[in-house]
Amino acid sequence: MPQTLSTTEPGFATAFEALLSAKREDAPDVDATVAAIIADVRVRGDAALIEMTARFDRLDLTPETLAFSAAEIAAEVAKVSSADRAALELAAERIRAYHVRQMPADAIWTDPDGATLGWRFTPVSAAGLYVPGGLASYPSSVLMNAIPARVAGVGRLVIACPTPGGVVNPLVLAAAQIAGVDTIYRIGGAQAIAALAYGTATVRPVDKITGPGNAYVAAAKRRVFGRVGIDMIAGPSEILVIADADNNPDWIALDLLSQAEHDESAQSILITDSADFGRAVVAAVEKRLETLERRAIAGASWRDYGAVIVVRDLDEAAELANRIAAEHLELCVADPEALADKIPHAGAIFLGAYTPEAIGDYVGGPNHVLPTARSARFSSGLSVLDFLKRTTLAKMTPAALAAIGPAAERLAISESLQAHGLSVRARLDALNGGDGA
Amino acid sequence: MPQTLSTTEPGFATAFEALLSAKREDAPDVDATVAAIIADVRVRGDAALIEMTARFDRLDLTPETLAFSAAEIAAEVAKVSSADRAALELAAERIRAYHVRQMPADAIWTDPDGATLGWRFTPVSAAGLYVPGGLASYPSSVLMNAIPARVAGVGRLVIACPTPGGVVNPLVLAAAQIAGVDTIYRIGGAQAIAALAYGTATVRPVDKITGPGNAYVAAAKRRVFGRVGIDMIAGPSEILVIADADNNPDWIALDLLSQAEHDESAQSILITDSADFGRAVVAAVEKRLETLERRAIAGASWRDYGAVIVVRDLDEAAELANRIAAEHLELCVADPEALADKIPHAGAIFLGAYTPEAIGDYVGGPNHVLPTARSARFSSGLSVLDFLKRTTLAKMTPAALAAIGPAAERLAISESLQAHGLSVRARLDALNGGDGA
Repeated sequence: MPQTLSTTEPGFATAFEALLSAKREDAPDVDATVAAIIADVRVRGDAALIEMTARFDRLDLTPETLAFSAAEIAAEVAKVSSADRAALELAAERIRAYHVRQMPADAIWTDPDGATLGWRFTPVSAAGLYVPGGLASYPSSVLMNAIPARVAGVGRLVIACPTPGGVVNPLVLAAAQIAGVDTIYRIGGAQAIAALAYGTATVRPVDKITGPGNAYVAAAKRRVFGRVGIDMIAGPSEILVIADADNNPDWIALDLLSQAEHDESAQSILITDSADFGRAVVAAVEKRLETLERRAIAGASWRDYGAVIVVRDLDEAAELANRIAAEHLELCVADPEALADKIPHAGAIFLGAYTPEAIGDYVGGPNHVLPTARSARFSSGLSVLDFLKRTTLAKMTPAALAAIGPAAERLAISESLQAHGLSVRARLDALNGGDGA
Repeated sequence: MPQTLSTTEPGFATAFEALLSAKREDAPDVDATVAAIIADVRVRGDAALIEMTARFDRLDLTPETLAFSAAEIAAEVAKVSSADRAALELAAERIRAYHVRQMPADAIWTDPDGATLGWRFTPVSAAGLYVPGGLASYPSSVLMNAIPARVAGVGRLVIACPTPGGVVNPLVLAAAQIAGVDTIYRIGGAQAIAALAYGTATVRPVDKITGPGNAYVAAAKRRVFGRVGIDMIAGPSEILVIADADNNPDWIALDLLSQAEHDESAQSILITDSADFGRAVVAAVEKRLETLERRAIAGASWRDYGAVIVVRDLDEAAELANRIAAEHLELCVADPEALADKIPHAGAIFLGAYTPEAIGDYVGGPNHVLPTARSARFSSGLSVLDFLKRTTLAKMTPAALAAIGPAAERLAISESLQAHGLSVRARLDALNGGDGA
């Protein structure tokens, strides 16, 4: 049984605060280990990679086999059923169509002073996607990371994916192929992040690294940040469902469980204006849990971090939702658009009872890499912008410089930056017929 | 004398690589100290802030005087000359006009399957700007950080600025007033970052922290990243000027020096297709250095990290410029637009001889907070986007769910995420006349 709160009960504020600040992840401090791994890869390159892959993944590689060959990829991809392949292709097409619309426009204009101003977006030259091995090796995440990169126009796109014991998920390779990934390395952990950031004789360095990973991968990404760009450091996942009594309790129960089954530290919260509906959902969760394959994981998540919050009305629900700032927000109410307008803080919003969150994980189109742990207050899901950078442009005519240059000179002097001021003054003097010196 | 390289000389590749990878900043490892400061502020709040401000800034504060009062601000702002104020206002107006154009559009559309998709941008609720005290207390940086936040629609905007010995730069307060900052705290260092991220009894926490700072501030920002959003961790600044022989060597010398005077670890590089012009610029720098107030700093930067690179032609210049990925790139050539098109990797580009970089520092309009240390390969200058976040939107009709739901179910099953699949299946069964369970 998850905890049940009601906004009308005394002590609600304290209990809600505790729910918000519950530490769901006890990440081990692996920073020193990761620092040593990165240093080793920087010094010994391929040799370090090969040695660590033998140790951690029980797999013997050579510089020639660090990456999958085309024949190896083809052999694995051939194992994928045509139905699975069709599903991946449908997902890829929808994700591509959504992300194409995100492409920002360049701009250039001339202002009243005669200054030409603007900006220009260009893609990063090379990006590396980390794909976890084993259980959490999700082909859908390959699509969600690789397609925005391709849409952005990234020149070279590579994957690092550990293959413990040499086993790889054929669907991951199929997804990489569909998304247009160039190279897939059989490496993982902090050593893979180090290789992508600094390069080795075999692995060419990239400029941006994205994708989820365990504590070692997260710590390595944090360490190489600055040398390369990274996406967010993902925490445990969460869903918030706001549902009124006019819903099927079983559907809502499954939506809550679809988050809970990810991970014991995932969090599923229901906010409802009907205590009866809340009880019906709890009962439906218990019933579904009995037959769920991942019931141990989903049950632990629901028991430890799940919550049902009964509110007086939907305005109260919106207020709480903003404080939760959920990664996934499902609005199963009569007018979901009106409610969404009141909730600025959420990673992704799923509107109405026919939009289960799982649609967004696979085929909706929007990205499923989203800000967790309340970071939707200040950050956004993965997008084409993560693979682009913007260069600002400015061009002064002599007249424009004459108009605004004196103010720049004055501010430079006030900041004691004499050469800044002189660089403007020399030009202004030349325009005024002086010698510019 | 800076080093002079020529692409026609043997050993150029090695020398250029060394120039690129020269470590210009030897940041002290203050991480343990910073961790202790943050922990102290989290536990003791205002008391810790007040104690550290007394110790580091020789200033005795109370909870009531942590922030400037309106009367104190008015008294300081009254000291600003009307000419300085007019220059600040001109700068603010131009920065605002530029950043208003950056506001991204929301989008919503319905696709052929009947799915409604889109996204929505909303501002962060509260942002904190760090403004260094003492020498590097730049009013222009207040404008460059605060105005994009205001344009984005940030609800509450505060500044943390240490005032060693109680001394504050009146222009900083004037800039804050012009930009519409709500509160200015007299606190600095890692303790200020901790207070902004976690809050104290007096300092309300914010969601995003931007602005430059010393090694302690940078380490603190890195540590609170995740709890709040941060902008980039800035490194030493740099300029790359590409100039042909048809330029005034003195102007180019001053542009190089305007970077060098910032900091001994700043870097100024000239690329030219004329060895004679390169020598003329070096001579002009030496001459200007003699009379520059900050000649010790500028001279050290120019001597230790400055460089003149002579190339065969401008295509070669573009190639090198992409590898340098400069924060500031000035193109003083006959067709600067054509050259800019060949250089995707740069933070800001200044086109033509009448656009000295200093214009961009103050009044051009684009932001002067830009990616340093080659990070223009993957990141961008500060913009309104730094104060916005994007929420994705998706709404399925029953028909849309019927069309794409089966593919989602199939992928969920392939990833062994049964509840994900069931959350879709239950709805599909209901649509097909089943009982939805």
